[in-house]
Amino acid sequence: MGSKKYSIGIDFGTESGRTVLVDVATGEEVATSVYEYKDGVIDELLPHTNIKLDPDFALQNPADYIETIKVTIPAVLRESGVDPEDVIGLGTDFTACTMMPIDKEGTPLCMKEEWRNNPHAWVKIWKHHAAQPEANRLNEIARQRGEEFLSRYGGKISSEWLFPKIWQILDEAPEIYEASDRFIEGADWIVLQLVGQEKRNLCTAGYKAIWEKSTGYPSDDFFAALDPRLRHVVDDKLSREIYPLGERAGGLTRQMAEWTGLREATAVSIGNVDAHVSVPACTVTTPGRMVMIMGTSICHMVLGNEKKIVEGMCGVVEDGIIPGYFGFEAGQSCVGDHFAWLVERATPPEYHEEAKKRGWDLHQLLEERATKLKPGESGLLALDWWNGNRSILVDVDLTGMLLGATLATRAEEIYRALIEATAYGTRIIIETFEKSGVAVDELVACGGLPEKNKLLMQIYSDVTGREIRVAASSQTPALGSAMHGAVAAGKDAGGYESVFEAAKQMAHLKAEIYRPIPEHQAVYERLYREYLRLHDYFGRGENDVMKVLKRVKVEALRGKR
Amino acid sequence: MGSKKYSIGIDFGTESGRTVLVDVATGEEVATSVYEYKDGVIDELLPHTNIKLDPDFALQNPADYIETIKVTIPAVLRESGVDPEDVIGLGTDFTACTMMPIDKEGTPLCMKEEWRNNPHAWVKIWKHHAAQPEANRLNEIARQRGEEFLSRYGGKISSEWLFPKIWQILDEAPEIYEASDRFIEGADWIVLQLVGQEKRNLCTAGYKAIWEKSTGYPSDDFFAALDPRLRHVVDDKLSREIYPLGERAGGLTRQMAEWTGLREATAVSIGNVDAHVSVPACTVTTPGRMVMIMGTSICHMVLGNEKKIVEGMCGVVEDGIIPGYFGFEAGQSCVGDHFAWLVERATPPEYHEEAKKRGWDLHQLLEERATKLKPGESGLLALDWWNGNRSILVDVDLTGMLLGATLATRAEEIYRALIEATAYGTRIIIETFEKSGVAVDELVACGGLPEKNKLLMQIYSDVTGREIRVAASSQTPALGSAMHGAVAAGKDAGGYESVFEAAKQMAHLKAEIYRPIPEHQAVYERLYREYLRLHDYFGRGENDVMKVLKRVKVEALRGKR
Repeated sequence: MGSKKYSIGIDFGTESGRTVLVDVATGEEVATSVYEYKDGVIDELLPHTNIKLDPDFALQNPADYIETIKVTIPAVLRESGVDPEDVIGLGTDFTACTMMPIDKEGTPLCMKEEWRNNPHAWVKIWKHHAAQPEANRLNEIARQRGEEFLSRYGGKISSEWLFPKIWQILDEAPEIYEASDRFIEGADWIVLQLVGQEKRNLCTAGYKAIWEKSTGYPSDDFFAALDPRLRHVVDDKLSREIYPLGERAGGLTRQMAEWTGLREATAVSIGNVDAHVSVPACTVTTPGRMVMIMGTSICHMVLGNEKKIVEGMCGVVEDGIIPGYFGFEAGQSCVGDHFAWLVERATPPEYHEEAKKRGWDLHQLLEERATKLKPGESGLLALDWWNGNRSILVDVDLTGMLLGATLATRAEEIYRALIEATAYGTRIIIETFEKSGVAVDELVACGGLPEKNKLLMQIYSDVTGREIRVAASSQTPALGSAMHGAVAAGKDAGGYESVFEAAKQMAHLKAEIYRPIPEHQAVYERLYREYLRLHDYFGRGENDVMKVLKRVKVEALRGKR
Repeated sequence: MGSKKYSIGIDFGTESGRTVLVDVATGEEVATSVYEYKDGVIDELLPHTNIKLDPDFALQNPADYIETIKVTIPAVLRESGVDPEDVIGLGTDFTACTMMPIDKEGTPLCMKEEWRNNPHAWVKIWKHHAAQPEANRLNEIARQRGEEFLSRYGGKISSEWLFPKIWQILDEAPEIYEASDRFIEGADWIVLQLVGQEKRNLCTAGYKAIWEKSTGYPSDDFFAALDPRLRHVVDDKLSREIYPLGERAGGLTRQMAEWTGLREATAVSIGNVDAHVSVPACTVTTPGRMVMIMGTSICHMVLGNEKKIVEGMCGVVEDGIIPGYFGFEAGQSCVGDHFAWLVERATPPEYHEEAKKRGWDLHQLLEERATKLKPGESGLLALDWWNGNRSILVDVDLTGMLLGATLATRAEEIYRALIEATAYGTRIIIETFEKSGVAVDELVACGGLPEKNKLLMQIYSDVTGREIRVAASSQTPALGSAMHGAVAAGKDAGGYESVFEAAKQMAHLKAEIYRPIPEHQAVYERLYREYLRLHDYFGRGENDVMKVLKRVKVEALRGKR
């Protein structure tokens, strides 16, 4: 021993896999390698075929995950010059629910000649939305039966989650359902590949498969009520053995050691989910501080000592983020996406030209101009529902609203109003947690947005009245995975006994702190009250105009075909 | 006699004056000439000075009016080759309220050395909005006193009208108030110049100066309640002699004959207002058909047999449009301006490039794309209040709203939603008239928009459920003025006895008729109900968020200075 120890984290994302090699003692990210998936997100044609996918399908090729491992681990070893003997652990995280049917040997059906041409044999990734009819039926039946689990998920099981996806396979491709030995999350499949054993993780089970520590899965009767053929879906196609986060799943197989250059039997941790594994990488391992993973959307993660039912949260899972705590998740479906919409769809040419002249991104220009505006100066107020509302209304049929426009309204004013609207949305989430007894004293941000947009961070601080700190790492999921790898390795091998200790040494925040500016807070207090009133008016059924418009739209499009 | 007879109409607009020479027998427009005002709208610096104007000032130079006459009448005579002996009459119309202080001889104070550097000596045109404080006080006092006249003007006297403007002069430049012998509308000043006699017209008196045929002006007590110095404003600074439309004001002076090339003593009609004089030029001289003058805004004009109080109308004036009828006026403050906002402020570069490639106006491209959408397909609904709401809410503090936006929302969808919103606004006006007993069976459109945008016309027909016809002339104000010139000349001179006869011969509609499409009507019926609900929710005080936002905005801007 004596020499420095390292851990590797791999973050399997939507378009690529990202691997980081980290100094276990300090969390320093020594080397990084990214592999862009060759088949990316498959949403038009099945690879190497002319088979067209139905709308809302979003698939991946599991070969891309293996390729990520084969390419990026050798790359970080090479780049860093680290001796593989000093790499004590390996952790992984995945998007979720990202699921696939596999055979007895763990081979995805899509990799088998006979099933290759069936879209349902492939990996359905998180944003596969084609199981909405099944999700709707599932929710209705669960409501009718008074299933208690609904309250743990904001009253609704998302079409993105495991059982709607399985049910869609049964509905549309019963032969695939039949042929599959098991359905498995990508998060667990990749661990199965790494260590040769299936060890299903608690995080996806809890947040995506309606499992909880004390009661397990929903009853067989519930599944039978969905479809008699689903009565034994858990025992037939899943597993009731669920493993806690941070545990050692096993040691790296010889095959994997050959492919990667790592030592055989290197400790590999139980699988994890990108958002959840980011929490300890943001230094958060205890209640009171909410982590916001800010990108195209926002995930809000916070820990609590007790199980609480919080309106419109995405889920509460015991041990789901950090062992010993209830992990609460909420979310906003459209944040960075909002600003991108404005930039792409509603910003006139002179802004594009000006940005180009300065060698800037258009977001940068809009941010610079919006920064010159005072809170309230635009006269605008928006409802940030361009992509529906996840928390706390859990309603995909809500749509965006902009109010207060005049003939003088300019793009940077709309830009600022959209930022403010998403900040109000976050404040509602925070207040809903606090009302339910889950404390949110401070905010820690990570993801792409905080580094790109200081104005946004200041507005979030002003609107929520809370200090915000930012994670030091720009790749918190991969760092979090490496931390879990170090925990799987254990203290004796030079790693850590728990994620708490790992976080203390390996996770860091930037020095910069965003603090609420009192004059801004006072203005936003008034505007927030107006937002709240419109939020409830349009979002809670008093005026269902958004839904009427959606219905009329669907009918208009149907008439057009 | 025997040879063809002609009449000249001059339309004094906001940026230019337009003169048309018309065949009296057929209405054929034989020649047209436009003079762009040298000083245009003066809203930054007083001409030839460094004197900066306060915000919301909008002035003109009366020298531009004289220049219009000197340039355009010779031009149309030259172009047509018509013998001045065959020009039997001359009519004029003006924007209103467009007013100025003059001395005993009728010379505008701004043309006098001693007053030239005082902004209040100049012509305040219709869109001079700096008298808003005076308008607010006037309305409050009128309400407190229970002045009956308020009900004739939708409950509010506009800051654009005569008495707020006079009062602003008294407030801010009492020396100008003192020095002025009279205040006069541009419509009457130009007639004074043409015939050498002051003959104030009934139209501006009725619609802009709170005058009515049966009761005259408000009482001296009312004016004294505004300011003791205003007690005798009518007798001191105006006149109680009001002349009906279509009458002969007098004959052309020798000086004017010299300048124009017309015969001395050519009949000149009483002054008129651009929107009002357009009504007979649209063939409308009886109740039942509403004229819509469609441009940056819409003026809605309709005739009735009885005085009715209609919510939110701009005014009802007996004989105010056509002798023998009550003339009703309503309006939407922002129509073409809406679309211009979208084009200039919220349409991305690729649309501009595509339009350029096709050699099109961007409006054309958006119209073409919006035409491909079905009613309801965009999923959008807007409140057309980017510039406040004139009728029926009479509230400049209302602001625009767009609802139903998604990440897929495109510019042409917003374009169509804005058109639809203005159509709903027109439908509310129509229904409000009908509820009050003023029939609106059919619509006749004129102005710039109907010729440019067929989609808009079809949507207005679909939304209102009414047939729409379009005036044959693209310059209805000038044509209407020429018609009044022919009436002033009289039948014996080859003209007409009344505007009714003139309209029968000289005014025409295009053959094309827009008819409601039943399937579209059905969809718009549903959307209109939603519009109506939001209109009342935001417009009638249930949710005052637009006003709160305006207050916060004003405070933010104040804090910034």
